[in-house]
Amino acid sequence: MRSYTIKRTLIGRLRQDTDLYDGISRIVLDNSVRIGRISGIGAVRRAAIAYYNQSEGRYEEIELDQPMEILALNGNISMKEGIPFAHLHVILGDRHGQVRGGHLLPGKSPVFACEIFVEEFDGPVLVRKTDSTTGLALWPTATIL
Amino acid sequence: MRSYTIKRTLIGRLRQDTDLYDGISRIVLDNSVRIGRISGIGAVRRAAIAYYNQSEGRYEEIELDQPMEILALNGNISMKEGIPFAHLHVILGDRHGQVRGGHLLPGKSPVFACEIFVEEFDGPVLVRKTDSTTGLALWPTATIL
Amino acid sequence: MRSYTIKRTLIGRLRQDTDLYDGISRIVLDNSVRIGRISGIGAVRRAAIAYYNQSEGRYEEIELDQPMEILALNGNISMKEGIPFAHLHVILGDRHGQVRGGHLLPGKSPVFACEIFVEEFDGPVLVRKTDSTTGLALWPTATIL
Repeated sequence: MRSYTIKRTLIGRLRQDTDLYDGISRIVLDNSVRIGRISGIGAVRRAAIAYYNQSEGRYEEIELDQPMEILALNGNISMKEGIPFAHLHVILGDRHGQVRGGHLLPGKSPVFACEIFVEEFDGPVLVRKTDSTTGLALWPTATIL
Repeated sequence: MRSYTIKRTLIGRLRQDTDLYDGISRIVLDNSVRIGRISGIGAVRRAAIAYYNQSEGRYEEIELDQPMEILALNGNISMKEGIPFAHLHVILGDRHGQVRGGHLLPGKSPVFACEIFVEEFDGPVLVRKTDSTTGLALWPTATIL
Repeated sequence: MRSYTIKRTLIGRLRQDTDLYDGISRIVLDNSVRIGRISGIGAVRRAAIAYYNQSEGRYEEIELDQPMEILALNGNISMKEGIPFAHLHVILGDRHGQVRGGHLLPGKSPVFACEIFVEEFDGPVLVRKTDSTTGLALWPTATIL
C-alpha cells in the first residue's frame, strides 16, 4: 500500500493563449513535481481531446473547435521516461451548457483563462511503463490498491 | 463546524476488470478509511449509474453499455451501518467526447484502467442515517455547514 | 511561484433548499476562508449556470429547470472587493444520465442534498481584479505559474 503526505500546493493561473496541456506540463517540470495531483477550472478558446479505443489500443482524437468553459480539469503527475509527466482528463461546456470531455492532448487547446491547483506529495515515486494488456503507460502492479 | 486535517493519501490504480465501485469500496474497508475523499481518472469497459428521482425517493438505473473514459470520479467516505461507505459520482465520455454521468452503482462497471487518490482525514466521524425528507442516507443535521 | 500548505478542511452538507452558490458563499464568509478550494457532490432541484462569451466579454445564463444530480462541483476561494469570493463550476446529470454544466450562478439553484469539502490554505492571499483583456476578475499576473 502506497501512502503519501502532501508537501505543498501550487496555486495560480495559466497565461492567456498558453496551451492547456503544455502549460501544465511546463509547470510540473519547472517545479520538479514528481508525484502530484492537478485540478482546475477556467475556459479555453478551443480544445483537442482523445478517447482511448480499448479494443484497438490507440487514442482517437476529437477536435472541439469553439470556445468552451473548463468545467473540470483532473489529473495526476508521475514519472515517465525519466521525467515528470501529467495525465489529464478534461470536461468542457459549450454555450448551451452541453458537455464534452476526454483525455487532454498536448498543443491544441489555447487557454482563455484557467485557475489551477497542483498538489505535490512526499512518498514513493510512481513510474509509468507500457502495459501490454491495455497498451497504456501504467503504474506498476505493486501500486494496485 | 467540523474541521479536519489530512492524515494520509493513498495513491494507486485499480486492477483491470475489477468493478469500479466494489474495488474502491474494498480499498476503503481494507485500509479502514472512516472519513475521506476520493478522486480519479481512467476508463471503464461499461458502466451502471443512477439518477435519484427526488419526488419518488428512489434511484433509477442507467446502463451505459460501451467502453468509456472516466473523466472524473468524485466522492466521499463516511460511516454507514457501522462500516466505512463510499459515495461516488462519476462522469464518463464516449468516443465522440459526449458525456454521461450519475451516481455510481456497485457491481456493473468493470475497470479498463483507473488511477485514484484516496485521502483519509483526522477528525470527528460522519455517520449516515436515513433522512425522512429526502429518503437518502445523509450526514446528521449537526454537519450542516 | 506561490506555494501553499493546507490549514484545515471543512466537511459537511448543505441544508435542503439552500441555494447552492449562496450557501457555499455564506460558509466561506462565516469561516473567513480567504484562500481555498471547494469540491462536492449531491443533487439540486433545478439550476442556473452560465457560459462566458469570450468575444463579447459577458456571461450568458442557462436555466436548467429540472432536478439534477451534482456530478461534480469544483472551485476556488480568493479575495474580491475585500471579501472572500467563491468561483465555482458545476456539472449536472439528468434522469437519462445526460450532462450539462457551466459557471454556477448565485440564487437560482436550490439544493436537494449536497456534501462538500472546503479546504483552507495557508499562504499569500490571492486578490481578483478586473482584467481588461478578458473582461474577467482574475488573479494578478504574479500568480501566473
